[in-house]
Amino acid sequence: MITLNSPLDMHLHLRDNNMLKIVAPLSSKDFAGAVVMPNLVPPITSIYEVKAYRDRIKDAIKDDNFEPFMTLFFKSDYDYDFLKEAKKYIKSIKLYPAGITTNSEDGVSSINVEELRNTLEAMSELELPLCIHGESNGFVMDREKEFVPVYQALAKAFPNLKIIMEHITTKDSVEALKKYENLYATITLHHLLITLDDVAGGLLQPHLFCKPIAKRPEDKKALLDIALSGNKKVMFGSDSAPHPKSAKEAPGCAAGVFTAPIILPKLVELFDSYDKLENLQAFISDNAREIYNLTPLKKDITLKKEEWKVPSEYDGVVPMFAGQKLSWKIQ
Amino acid sequence: MITLNSPLDMHLHLRDNNMLKIVAPLSSKDFAGAVVMPNLVPPITSIYEVKAYRDRIKDAIKDDNFEPFMTLFFKSDYDYDFLKEAKKYIKSIKLYPAGITTNSEDGVSSINVEELRNTLEAMSELELPLCIHGESNGFVMDREKEFVPVYQALAKAFPNLKIIMEHITTKDSVEALKKYENLYATITLHHLLITLDDVAGGLLQPHLFCKPIAKRPEDKKALLDIALSGNKKVMFGSDSAPHPKSAKEAPGCAAGVFTAPIILPKLVELFDSYDKLENLQAFISDNAREIYNLTPLKKDITLKKEEWKVPSEYDGVVPMFAGQKLSWKIQ
Repeated sequence: MITLNSPLDMHLHLRDNNMLKIVAPLSSKDFAGAVVMPNLVPPITSIYEVKAYRDRIKDAIKDDNFEPFMTLFFKSDYDYDFLKEAKKYIKSIKLYPAGITTNSEDGVSSINVEELRNTLEAMSELELPLCIHGESNGFVMDREKEFVPVYQALAKAFPNLKIIMEHITTKDSVEALKKYENLYATITLHHLLITLDDVAGGLLQPHLFCKPIAKRPEDKKALLDIALSGNKKVMFGSDSAPHPKSAKEAPGCAAGVFTAPIILPKLVELFDSYDKLENLQAFISDNAREIYNLTPLKKDITLKKEEWKVPSEYDGVVPMFAGQKLSWKIQ
Repeated sequence: MITLNSPLDMHLHLRDNNMLKIVAPLSSKDFAGAVVMPNLVPPITSIYEVKAYRDRIKDAIKDDNFEPFMTLFFKSDYDYDFLKEAKKYIKSIKLYPAGITTNSEDGVSSINVEELRNTLEAMSELELPLCIHGESNGFVMDREKEFVPVYQALAKAFPNLKIIMEHITTKDSVEALKKYENLYATITLHHLLITLDDVAGGLLQPHLFCKPIAKRPEDKKALLDIALSGNKKVMFGSDSAPHPKSAKEAPGCAAGVFTAPIILPKLVELFDSYDKLENLQAFISDNAREIYNLTPLKKDITLKKEEWKVPSEYDGVVPMFAGQKLSWKIQ
């Protein structure tokens, strides 16, 4: 038996409309709160949209014991006054580096720090963390590695800004994280479990296809080492990303693994298998509280060693481990 | 306009039964001959099976102007007398290294040469080439690189045996090929065109999922360099591997790209785009004649610069470039 206090998912896709109604209750049931990604279509860039989306989420979960931590989609024209007002409603801002290009000669990405200076200085002052999807537009297995210099440049240029390297997948990111005091990271469940071998080493498994793509065995080991250690700079963020079964099982399959319903049982199983259950509370909640400076709603989730079978789908969305047996169950 | 004399596909999967009937005519139409892989279920290991499969192929193509070059599935108990008789019906023997294991400590594969000695010495004496699917059972991106020491060990141990590295996909293989006189290689069309980025860099493309998996940009460049140069040690082998659409567009998608119907137009387009059309005859036929010491049936295939659209499928099998336009057409 293990009880987790106020589990937090610090990187979650809840989508909108019908998909929101399917997936939001599956996260709100097991978690006390989650950082909700702003990449709807169109992305969330105004306070009005933040509030409206938050209301739609609250409506979908029909549950007061879960707090959606809202975010804005980064734009370099956000100014201090806007951010000060926004801070009442959001917990961080998410940067997707669309404009960051890779220098193909030396495989290193660069960023124009000056272009972002006003917004990032305002965020530093307001203590608003910056979440970054850190990938270059290079070769798929190199994208995260090529982005590391950008993380380093930003960490140096804005030493008072908390920068969160989202869903890191490589040894290089783990090493960069340790070098800069103001760098933090989220790690997904699936990147602790799979490598590219699981996606494409045997038959091709579209339900394990995600971005950033699962990497090499030594990368998975580095992620496991830091997560299992309870290191205060990493926190759990599922990046649970639902797509309809029909969009996953077709040519042009969308990227994303839907883990929401199986996260806590599988994390307990994983930490237990390495005899590190004592560090799971840090990874699943305590580290996030410190990094984000937040006090979550009180919610205790107890799991027991008891076999159960993961459903093959949730209203047309296929979860990770669909149809397979897990050895820990939420009580 | 370009005319290719007796194009040869030195690595082809023709399958059996209904699939054979669908795909065989698409190869026999454009090629004078093809090395037909023996990995049916069960694999072809007797002269009786070779002859029966050859008859089924001849029946499927209904065309005398195409020669299926038959092969046997390698077994280490083939002896000289068996191979001498078999040589009347086959052109080579294909080794799938099921028993070869990777040493996980140094990531190098090894092989027990002595176990294979009798068979490989008999093949040397009979001038029967050995075709090898050269992959370890390691991490998917490393499998071919890890197999290179096995190629080298075999090339050294059996200097009179022609060893054909099938469907090479890496820079390492190109380098190994150049070092040993008795190493040769086939290269597919798709590995000259795609990297892992095309399979999984954007949305996931199951129809481009193949084994060996498409590799890195520098690997593709090395393959292109040696193929376009007309180097006498490499020959075209499509590894065209049809699967029903339903098996490709589903979880657990089978590996294989179906290129048979578009090979010659696309190869001409490719060689033309690099201004190397003069070397295509070597790659598509002449090198194979020398390596295999064979005289193909006479068959001239003429292509003209004329746009056409690739069908979206051939009786339920989706070809590479389905629905897209190609700029050269067979007359």
